[in-house]
Amino acid sequence: MDTDARSHRYEALADEFAGLIDRRVLGPGDRLPSVRRLSHEKRLSVSTVLQALRTLEERGLVEARPQSGFFVRRRPLARAVPEPRRPPARATKVDISQRLVNVLQLNARAGIVPLGAALPDTALLPVAAIQRLYATVARQQPNLLRSGSHTDMNEVALLRQLVRRSMSWGGPLDTDEIVVTNSCTEAMFLCLRAVTRPGDTIAVESPGYYLMLQLIESLGLKALEIPTDPRRGISIDALDLATRDGREGKVKACLLVANASNPLGTTLSDADKKRLARLLESRGVPLIEDDIYGDLHFGERRPWPVKAFDRSGNVMLCASFSKSITPALRVGFVAAGRHHAEVMRQKTLASGATNPISQNVLARYLESGAYDRSLRTLRRAYREQVERMSDAVSRHFPEGTRITRPQGGLVLWLELPGQVDTNALFERAAEENIAFVPGDLFSPSGLYRNCLRLNCGNPWTPAIEAGVRRLGELAAELPEA
Amino acid sequence: MDTDARSHRYEALADEFAGLIDRRVLGPGDRLPSVRRLSHEKRLSVSTVLQALRTLEERGLVEARPQSGFFVRRRPLARAVPEPRRPPARATKVDISQRLVNVLQLNARAGIVPLGAALPDTALLPVAAIQRLYATVARQQPNLLRSGSHTDMNEVALLRQLVRRSMSWGGPLDTDEIVVTNSCTEAMFLCLRAVTRPGDTIAVESPGYYLMLQLIESLGLKALEIPTDPRRGISIDALDLATRDGREGKVKACLLVANASNPLGTTLSDADKKRLARLLESRGVPLIEDDIYGDLHFGERRPWPVKAFDRSGNVMLCASFSKSITPALRVGFVAAGRHHAEVMRQKTLASGATNPISQNVLARYLESGAYDRSLRTLRRAYREQVERMSDAVSRHFPEGTRITRPQGGLVLWLELPGQVDTNALFERAAEENIAFVPGDLFSPSGLYRNCLRLNCGNPWTPAIEAGVRRLGELAAELPEA
Repeated sequence: MDTDARSHRYEALADEFAGLIDRRVLGPGDRLPSVRRLSHEKRLSVSTVLQALRTLEERGLVEARPQSGFFVRRRPLARAVPEPRRPPARATKVDISQRLVNVLQLNARAGIVPLGAALPDTALLPVAAIQRLYATVARQQPNLLRSGSHTDMNEVALLRQLVRRSMSWGGPLDTDEIVVTNSCTEAMFLCLRAVTRPGDTIAVESPGYYLMLQLIESLGLKALEIPTDPRRGISIDALDLATRDGREGKVKACLLVANASNPLGTTLSDADKKRLARLLESRGVPLIEDDIYGDLHFGERRPWPVKAFDRSGNVMLCASFSKSITPALRVGFVAAGRHHAEVMRQKTLASGATNPISQNVLARYLESGAYDRSLRTLRRAYREQVERMSDAVSRHFPEGTRITRPQGGLVLWLELPGQVDTNALFERAAEENIAFVPGDLFSPSGLYRNCLRLNCGNPWTPAIEAGVRRLGELAAELPEA
Repeated sequence: MDTDARSHRYEALADEFAGLIDRRVLGPGDRLPSVRRLSHEKRLSVSTVLQALRTLEERGLVEARPQSGFFVRRRPLARAVPEPRRPPARATKVDISQRLVNVLQLNARAGIVPLGAALPDTALLPVAAIQRLYATVARQQPNLLRSGSHTDMNEVALLRQLVRRSMSWGGPLDTDEIVVTNSCTEAMFLCLRAVTRPGDTIAVESPGYYLMLQLIESLGLKALEIPTDPRRGISIDALDLATRDGREGKVKACLLVANASNPLGTTLSDADKKRLARLLESRGVPLIEDDIYGDLHFGERRPWPVKAFDRSGNVMLCASFSKSITPALRVGFVAAGRHHAEVMRQKTLASGATNPISQNVLARYLESGAYDRSLRTLRRAYREQVERMSDAVSRHFPEGTRITRPQGGLVLWLELPGQVDTNALFERAAEENIAFVPGDLFSPSGLYRNCLRLNCGNPWTPAIEAGVRRLGELAAELPEA
């Protein structure tokens, strides 16, 4: 069967209903036609219709009710989604590190309302199980620390588990292409070191994750912001244009989050992922893909990374379990395709081996099946927290505030009405012990000054509700710039 | 009492005897005059004379025999020490990473004679005790992993132990100046990031440690090689000259190993350390000090780091326990003085927190006293291995080969006679599964092409003896360049 044609069909149907909902032809609480009826009327297979409905569900537009069918959701419709913006066509020098550190340090202050860094409450995470595994592994494999030199960088047990897990999203990865790292950020750092030199231009999403921008800054690179659609993700057309031959400041790598992007929460469609993989392959531009949120999707199916559509080893897939197991583990990885040897070289130089006990703890946890059980709970929790945050913003923020509808992850992105400056809001909120991340940190060209990102990693509490309410009040008092 | 004057006196006496031994006025096995007689004749205090004799012992020139006094050693005198060389007066771009990776990868090959990377045999290390502590800590402190976010970078238990240990070498450090890192190399990386920008010039020892040069290369810095005396260490006079105002390409930081340097094995005298601290303070040049070998001295007393002579927070002391506990632990630290806030910032950006379980394992091990017991054994082992390596080189390498007399650590540095190229020797030795590090990697200007470094981290075996013999034969066959 032609997968492409099918994916176009279910997406077309999903888009049709999304349009009806947006124009209020279908209102909150309205029931959608049944699967059987849609299948008949549209001449589509039942599975294509179901996939379209699930896509709408993933976008937060409809909800399934047992034995009753699909209904338009009541809540998120109170708010519109942010509009796409047009970043500069030229690469920009990045200068965010100093401000970024201030934001991260505020977020770490005792007693803060922690809406800044995208960090889960550890109460949600399986840290007790992990810690017990440290005791087990240390007891049962007494010679692990003898292998921790430069000679044995990767624990085979972990490589095997990473490959096994990749089977659920279009893998398998190859054990020979994986390098274990101290974190997802280190993985991206090594990839950039492997394929760029100072002065090179890197294509990123706009808005894009601040730690990616910080890596670009620290390696003396420049960022070329590619426009994104706040519902669908990065514009492949714009990336096509930006990577055409003869462009000045040729793009040397592309660095992005295809699944539950940060900060927008968008997941590229499979068709777009495939097109992206083909495009970058044909242009000879390596893709560095951050898939840290892939396991934290809100829909039914684990979305595939772009890596699953890679035929030539052009995609370097980076991830860790910091959002889904615990950030304290300090184990990430990269499946670097044809760049493996160079990435391994960079790892040898940058930090040598990764702690073998921690690697084995992670391997055992993944092997046990406990990770999958924990993930189901965690995904529900994040999804609910994102919804509650979205509700609270709807109630407490100024009229005209726009909100994303994340398809996974643990953050929400807001666009405030008018020419306000969320850096000023940050200063005011800091005085009242409320942290968030100003939009300025997601764009080297300063394109999102009236936007901000909220962390939804914590279970809902009166303190968080009060923090969001107060933040909304402060936002309403902001002067127009 | 005036410490400076006293240290000059004992060093002058030690130098006098070193000269007599070098010129063979005193031959192997000759007895030195008694302490009482020397004290009387030279009008020096008994303690000054004793310190001079211990200095000669640390340099490997004499040995104490119980109830008999000090005697000229029989063995090392078969070989002279390398001569100082004169590096270029200008800063040099560094380009060693590619060759360095080849060397490190060869050293990791199965079945290799491991004379390359400075890595101890794990059989010498207390890895079993460390691994048991992982089980204990994981059991007894069940909430450790809950603290592993950006919010709690450093485990207080570890900070306390680091401060406590510093008391034995002129500390105490201040808990508020310490940043825990993943390794000593990461500590130096963060320090360089904190005080330099691309294009800056960094003063280093010549010959100097290749991972320092690699850091300089990867951060887009330049290296200014400062001459060293293969018996005494870096020339403070030359550093004085190089850091004078008005010099073009002003030195922005100095990066060195004051205790058991790498590759020469020299330890600066206290007088030189004090002078170095004062000089760099007065010039406003931060010192990044790598003290990873400080605990692995061959003499009686734990040598002080330059940090002990720092009055203004100008010295950033970096270390880890990779050579003395296990490289698999992945915990190092930096006591960054007045640069602490900026180094902490860089750590937040570069890699976030360090695994809290590993931090606590290290803290408990240091607290238990087991580290000090293990160190005594380890120091004896390294010292003996360095001596046996030295003996074997004396027997098997070409006439005219010069050898260092390390005062600590686990490496030996050789200068081969004539204009031979140890890169060619490396290729030949690789074919026969023997690894070492060519001299070229210790100087960006290529000043040590006829030198090489040998790792003495492994207990002596027939295989190592055979490897050294074969390496000596291959060296004898090298063509003059």
